[in-house]
Amino acid sequence: MKPMQVLLLALLGILTCVAQTRTPVPAAPAQRTPAPSSPPVTDEAQIRELYDNWAKAFRAHDVEGIMAVYAPGKTLVAYDVVPPLQYVGREAYRKDYEEFLAQYQGPIEVEYRDLRIIADDRVAFVHALERMSGTLKNGQKLDFWLRATSGLQKIHSKWLIVHDHISVPANFETGKAVLDLKP
Amino acid sequence: MKPMQVLLLALLGILTCVAQTRTPVPAAPAQRTPAPSSPPVTDEAQIRELYDNWAKAFRAHDVEGIMAVYAPGKTLVAYDVVPPLQYVGREAYRKDYEEFLAQYQGPIEVEYRDLRIIADDRVAFVHALERMSGTLKNGQKLDFWLRATSGLQKIHSKWLIVHDHISVPANFETGKAVLDLKP
Repeated sequence: MKPMQVLLLALLGILTCVAQTRTPVPAAPAQRTPAPSSPPVTDEAQIRELYDNWAKAFRAHDVEGIMAVYAPGKTLVAYDVVPPLQYVGREAYRKDYEEFLAQYQGPIEVEYRDLRIIADDRVAFVHALERMSGTLKNGQKLDFWLRATSGLQKIHSKWLIVHDHISVPANFETGKAVLDLKP
Repeated sequence: MKPMQVLLLALLGILTCVAQTRTPVPAAPAQRTPAPSSPPVTDEAQIRELYDNWAKAFRAHDVEGIMAVYAPGKTLVAYDVVPPLQYVGREAYRKDYEEFLAQYQGPIEVEYRDLRIIADDRVAFVHALERMSGTLKNGQKLDFWLRATSGLQKIHSKWLIVHDHISVPANFETGKAVLDLKP
């Protein structure tokens, strides 16, 4: 689902406290003349931008924008917070998003906590705790924390998500999904 | 080629037969002269071996063997199928394993389905559907499918898991964790 989606809005706010494994992107220098060449954008910065784009699209119920961060065809395999066990392929996951978004009225807010990006040149993964809050069409307000993990590959020089895993913990004694946890 | 080398090559062939995203290791060529050196073991093969080692240790309730596949200290962050939202650090996750294993009598069987390994030189992730079956100490038999995702880093030339995400889906209408799904 969707939960995964959550990632980005908050990203902007938490960029400075995110756990990183590489050097942070330097702030853009204030200058009057155009730079002769732009500094190289790190893989982490590109991945953060991808998550930012996702969050903006998610907040706006923009399914095309959401799907722009995902790999094509059957490359994409997602484990969403809701059944089934897995969504194989882009079209199945898009349908999952559409069904999720259709339940909500207005924007769906996303907040990240403890986000970590670990990237090599062509393979990366990201994980974060993710707060999702919004209002269902029946008026009920939902506000809960998920766990989100994504696997990414650089495909034709562009980072894309090939795997999502979104969940809440389960209590095996009661059989309940646990939706009231806070980090 | 020495019998031992042939055996090793055959083993490699078997290991790499499983779901892979890179080129499989070629089958051992039939040749009369001894190979000058053993072929390199692929990152996927090393990661697959790590997963197999984990399953053997898990089956045997061998906590030391289980923890041997994980990164040291606070590098390890795990989202387990049970609360809390996250386990930060190796010691917290070890305790989680000890508590889980203490509930079972006899071996706990693990079966993987649709396992995929995506690896670069220093960063990798793995995901699979995972069937877990065993008998609780009160005699109750459990047999259910999980979703498992791991993020790995090559640390001092050795692949180690730095992130686990284990879950079952949740039904938001009933509030239940969904334990009866099959792939």
